[in-house]
Amino acid sequence: MAEPNFSHLDGDGRIQMVDISSKEMTRRVAQASCLVVTRIDGRSLEPRSDGFNVIQAARLTGIQTAKRTAELIPLCHPLPLTSIRLDVAEHPRGFLVRSEVATDNRTGVEMEALTACSYAALSLVNSLIANEPEAHVEDVILLRKSGGKSGDWGREVDGAG
Amino acid sequence: MAEPNFSHLDGDGRIQMVDISSKEMTRRVAQASCLVVTRIDGRSLEPRSDGFNVIQAARLTGIQTAKRTAELIPLCHPLPLTSIRLDVAEHPRGFLVRSEVATDNRTGVEMEALTACSYAALSLVNSLIANEPEAHVEDVILLRKSGGKSGDWGREVDGAG
Amino acid sequence: MAEPNFSHLDGDGRIQMVDISSKEMTRRVAQASCLVVTRIDGRSLEPRSDGFNVIQAARLTGIQTAKRTAELIPLCHPLPLTSIRLDVAEHPRGFLVRSEVATDNRTGVEMEALTACSYAALSLVNSLIANEPEAHVEDVILLRKSGGKSGDWGREVDGAG
Amino acid sequence: MAEPNFSHLDGDGRIQMVDISSKEMTRRVAQASCLVVTRIDGRSLEPRSDGFNVIQAARLTGIQTAKRTAELIPLCHPLPLTSIRLDVAEHPRGFLVRSEVATDNRTGVEMEALTACSYAALSLVNSLIANEPEAHVEDVILLRKSGGKSGDWGREVDGAG
Amino acid sequence: MAEPNFSHLDGDGRIQMVDISSKEMTRRVAQASCLVVTRIDGRSLEPRSDGFNVIQAARLTGIQTAKRTAELIPLCHPLPLTSIRLDVAEHPRGFLVRSEVATDNRTGVEMEALTACSYAALSLVNSLIANEPEAHVEDVILLRKSGGKSGDWGREVDGAG
Amino acid sequence: MAEPNFSHLDGDGRIQMVDISSKEMTRRVAQASCLVVTRIDGRSLEPRSDGFNVIQAARLTGIQTAKRTAELIPLCHPLPLTSIRLDVAEHPRGFLVRSEVATDNRTGVEMEALTACSYAALSLVNSLIANEPEAHVEDVILLRKSGGKSGDWGREVDGAG
Repeated sequence: MAEPNFSHLDGDGRIQMVDISSKEMTRRVAQASCLVVTRIDGRSLEPRSDGFNVIQAARLTGIQTAKRTAELIPLCHPLPLTSIRLDVAEHPRGFLVRSEVATDNRTGVEMEALTACSYAALSLVNSLIANEPEAHVEDVILLRKSGGKSGDWGREVDGAG
Repeated sequence: MAEPNFSHLDGDGRIQMVDISSKEMTRRVAQASCLVVTRIDGRSLEPRSDGFNVIQAARLTGIQTAKRTAELIPLCHPLPLTSIRLDVAEHPRGFLVRSEVATDNRTGVEMEALTACSYAALSLVNSLIANEPEAHVEDVILLRKSGGKSGDWGREVDGAG
Repeated sequence: MAEPNFSHLDGDGRIQMVDISSKEMTRRVAQASCLVVTRIDGRSLEPRSDGFNVIQAARLTGIQTAKRTAELIPLCHPLPLTSIRLDVAEHPRGFLVRSEVATDNRTGVEMEALTACSYAALSLVNSLIANEPEAHVEDVILLRKSGGKSGDWGREVDGAG
Repeated sequence: MAEPNFSHLDGDGRIQMVDISSKEMTRRVAQASCLVVTRIDGRSLEPRSDGFNVIQAARLTGIQTAKRTAELIPLCHPLPLTSIRLDVAEHPRGFLVRSEVATDNRTGVEMEALTACSYAALSLVNSLIANEPEAHVEDVILLRKSGGKSGDWGREVDGAG
Repeated sequence: MAEPNFSHLDGDGRIQMVDISSKEMTRRVAQASCLVVTRIDGRSLEPRSDGFNVIQAARLTGIQTAKRTAELIPLCHPLPLTSIRLDVAEHPRGFLVRSEVATDNRTGVEMEALTACSYAALSLVNSLIANEPEAHVEDVILLRKSGGKSGDWGREVDGAG
Repeated sequence: MAEPNFSHLDGDGRIQMVDISSKEMTRRVAQASCLVVTRIDGRSLEPRSDGFNVIQAARLTGIQTAKRTAELIPLCHPLPLTSIRLDVAEHPRGFLVRSEVATDNRTGVEMEALTACSYAALSLVNSLIANEPEAHVEDVILLRKSGGKSGDWGREVDGAG
């Protein structure tokens, strides 16, 4: 196991919002995904179906919440996002939610992409849970990110999310 | 597989916020949990450690976001919560987040409990992800709920979350 | 013309939030409507059409914003709403938006119903305006209200909204 | 009647927030207006009058809400506004509300200008409606916009708003 | 000096939102005040003066922010307020801000009253600080509170605020 | 005493949000401080103590609220902040809160620094007030600011805050 290394603590263990003033303004993109596990048949996703309406609501919720990430997660920087894409697709175990977020700014949008996914998923769960309390969210993961000094990163695909 | 059954759609497939006016004012409690998977050693959780500071931040974030559930999830009812508990515990794979939310009102607080967990977990991920982009959230699940006409419900424990 | 009579000013012309502490807890309902004027054919409203998706988004926006009325309009009282209905219907000049909001509380929900309509309409306009800058909102009106000491009130129907 | 053309739907009818990453950073200005119809005498607008206080409150509300447009209208981009002007003037039928909003960014501020007007108007209605439930908002219209690739646009003046 | 006694920590030093479920629903009132110290002549407060406009804005800001106390201060309970009064009066050193907040609920509104004052004062400072960076806020104090099991409490008046 | 000079009023005494469109994009920094007066022993601040947990919560609250300054104070411009530092230190009379906020933008961050301090202080008071209703905030002051046309400014140190 690794030693703890929390980037949001200064040398005295105090919580801080990292100073990004001197970082470069560049295009930053992040993708994330998660899985809504449900007994509902994924084919209810088809355009023109009722399920599609619930999914449009979930997409809208994810888009809307992504814009408020810095308000909700205390140590995130406020970043005017230039693009948010949210997709909900059929999956053998329910619905697969994927997000892509972009900005031109001094820090990355990983948390924005994860927030978009999580809230789209919670919105779906909200529509399911009265009838199916077992409905839940799995594998809220970062898929890839690009831009910034730390360079690009991509997750090894293992079919899990 | 079950037929779709979305409680937030009316007969014409239109999205609605369910009318709870005639439901009874009773005490409603819900518990939820999720897992933050990380290489960070869970023992950094110990009180008085730096990890404990990050965890206090996560607990605060979960508590704060739970109160805003109805603002963030479009079809949730606004409910003045009377109690929010957030706990983060050591787990072989990282941190186990548990929430308990209560209200005295006309509808349940399942989504509030799930939101509390999800945001506490995202706050933890936010502190980890710069160094460990693989850090992620698993198994955002409802554990149990009580109060209301539909009666009490508890999840079969399978050690997963 | 009538003499000004602003209920939110005290005797010295100072803005106040009216004290409702001694008012009765009763069921309060309000209905409002407005018209989105556009060249878009109202038949695009039909379920399963693309227009229907935009309309679902508008309904969601209206529902979501109604819950935040007291946050946005300074002198409104915070009221946990128990029901919000938003409907968008075909109209010869575009889309007719109607809302119905209810609560069990000490003051009425007129502003919540008007806010729901206005924001659903603005969300529709947002989807239209890039192509049709003339798209606009007309006749944001209260239709009726019930509950409370001042009694029920209903607008004379004149076909305008 | 025109064919529907919703800029916020992709080819599959899915709701999206349009990608503006590649658009140019330029100065964008938009003006909008609406009319608050009331029996209250417009002369109560005069500086130093009580009506003026209510109008100051409305101006403040419009300014404040304009800044939150992207939070309230799901598919709007977050834009740090550089200028917001709100004016409320005497009008034979009540109060005429006008807004002008500016930014230096990648997309226009039409919705911000319309939101500013609408909320200033709703704030006025809020101060009137207890005594005059017929008070309402008419003609929430875009007056003109400038900046961006699509060029400048101005509404034909027809005295309607 | 007293021993620390933080009501928001449980036995293990973990932050919590206190459970108020079993507390009684009663009328709770709190009053607070603070002082805005400025070189501006207090007589600019007179109704019909320009100063009065700035003060109306401050009152509105205090009222509006009081309603959002639970959103801004993490461990406050969400409470639908029934009354908010904000007053700004002439004072030899600048402006004296006083607030009174009431609710019928399970916990007190001390923080709501303090928040109302603080934000009204910050709004005033915002209008002064470009010309007078020394303008500041002093003595944000609770004046009195009533309702609830702990009984009524009132501050000894010492002319300080 | 000085003549009133309110930068947020136009020539007719109407409230406005100042147009900063033509101001230069430069680095702007502001520092502020305030004092939380309490009987609690300042040594409870020591890392690893319970008091430290309450202080971490206060720091988080200040950071989080600073990002929302423009939402809460009506005439502030929305500014994406690049750095927020919050410190709480031992003081003979209680806790001394200090903030430093930075942005690269067209206007200063004085109000953001003052908001950060005020809310961190109110969060501390919230943890104290149930046991010590006399706990309060003093001397919310701007310490220094730099950047922008008006040049740098620093407060004369008088030991007051």
